[in-house]
Amino acid sequence: MENLSKEELNHVISRVLKRIYKPVKVEVGVSNRHVHLSKADLETLFGEGYELTKFKDLKQPGFFAAKETVRIIGPKNVMNNVRILGPLRPETQIEISVSDSFALGIKAPIRESGKLGDTPGVMVMGPKGFVAKDEGVIIAHRHIHMPTAYAKDNGYRDGQCVKVKTTGTREVELSNVLIRTHDKVVLEAHFDMDEANACGLKNGDFVEIVRE
Amino acid sequence: MENLSKEELNHVISRVLKRIYKPVKVEVGVSNRHVHLSKADLETLFGEGYELTKFKDLKQPGFFAAKETVRIIGPKNVMNNVRILGPLRPETQIEISVSDSFALGIKAPIRESGKLGDTPGVMVMGPKGFVAKDEGVIIAHRHIHMPTAYAKDNGYRDGQCVKVKTTGTREVELSNVLIRTHDKVVLEAHFDMDEANACGLKNGDFVEIVRE
Repeated sequence: MENLSKEELNHVISRVLKRIYKPVKVEVGVSNRHVHLSKADLETLFGEGYELTKFKDLKQPGFFAAKETVRIIGPKNVMNNVRILGPLRPETQIEISVSDSFALGIKAPIRESGKLGDTPGVMVMGPKGFVAKDEGVIIAHRHIHMPTAYAKDNGYRDGQCVKVKTTGTREVELSNVLIRTHDKVVLEAHFDMDEANACGLKNGDFVEIVRE
Repeated sequence: MENLSKEELNHVISRVLKRIYKPVKVEVGVSNRHVHLSKADLETLFGEGYELTKFKDLKQPGFFAAKETVRIIGPKNVMNNVRILGPLRPETQIEISVSDSFALGIKAPIRESGKLGDTPGVMVMGPKGFVAKDEGVIIAHRHIHMPTAYAKDNGYRDGQCVKVKTTGTREVELSNVLIRTHDKVVLEAHFDMDEANACGLKNGDFVEIVRE
């Protein structure tokens, strides 16, 4: 029997996997710029003992958009009415898009949520005060929230990067979509506004994970 | 001999084409929102007999960015300092991104340049007057300008759509990239600001056409 080339072997593996697993379709959630606040920063911005008011629940259980918004001030521009997402976190995190980073004049890196080392800061202003953050501004790395059991059943693991494909006039196949598994999440793919607009995606659309 | 499945046949064709042709790498040009003006509209906006002043040459021979800018007024918002590109055209055309279309409150379609039937209008304002366009606002369909001879040598044809791939953290494979051939163009792939920011592309980067 002849040896298979690496390309041919990949081709065979791909065909086998396609027979074992059904296509995984994931609902899309588009994130506009937003902030997560620490308790200390919330109190500086809104007053001592202040608590966030729920505006609406997000798809991920326990998470919500607050009625409260803040103003973000960068060296080049100001952005008003930037939504706060709850609940509070140990560290304040400001999530913007690449477009926002140009508009604000802040060179933010593409990062996984919570990884704030060596990120730029920004001025955040609320009705009762402001905080000058030294760090915390990121462009969120695109990712899929996946229930742990679902990942196991479908052959995915936490921290793995996959490709997803979209359909339509702006059809694309996006690489480097990070899978993050957890017991208490629902299946959802998160993209920022640049990605959504470039790919013709909106909340509630579906993307498909490419089986390679 | 066994029959080949369609998938296997495509696989074989793909491998043959990859041996015949070298990878085609195309330089990227990112288009921010801009307008092309008709002579009549230029004169309404800037005065009778007015002529555009060159700010800088574009990569495509004969095309230039003008020093002059206009204001674009939509139902939801105003955009200032929108660059005019020369030379003048038979019809005024306003090119925006999906993000811009949300910001302005104008539902523009993704269209090939020059195909303005059934497109929305917008108010355009200059220092000497304004024009209320009934149509002409489009989101440019991503495309590759390709010299006719180059297309022939590399097995592409005018009007064909191809996939291109990028590299980096935001690696993607973009489908539906329209090839437009002409004798007097240089090889260049045009994307709008949303696409550039979502894919980590900037002027002078290179994308590769996927040989399928």
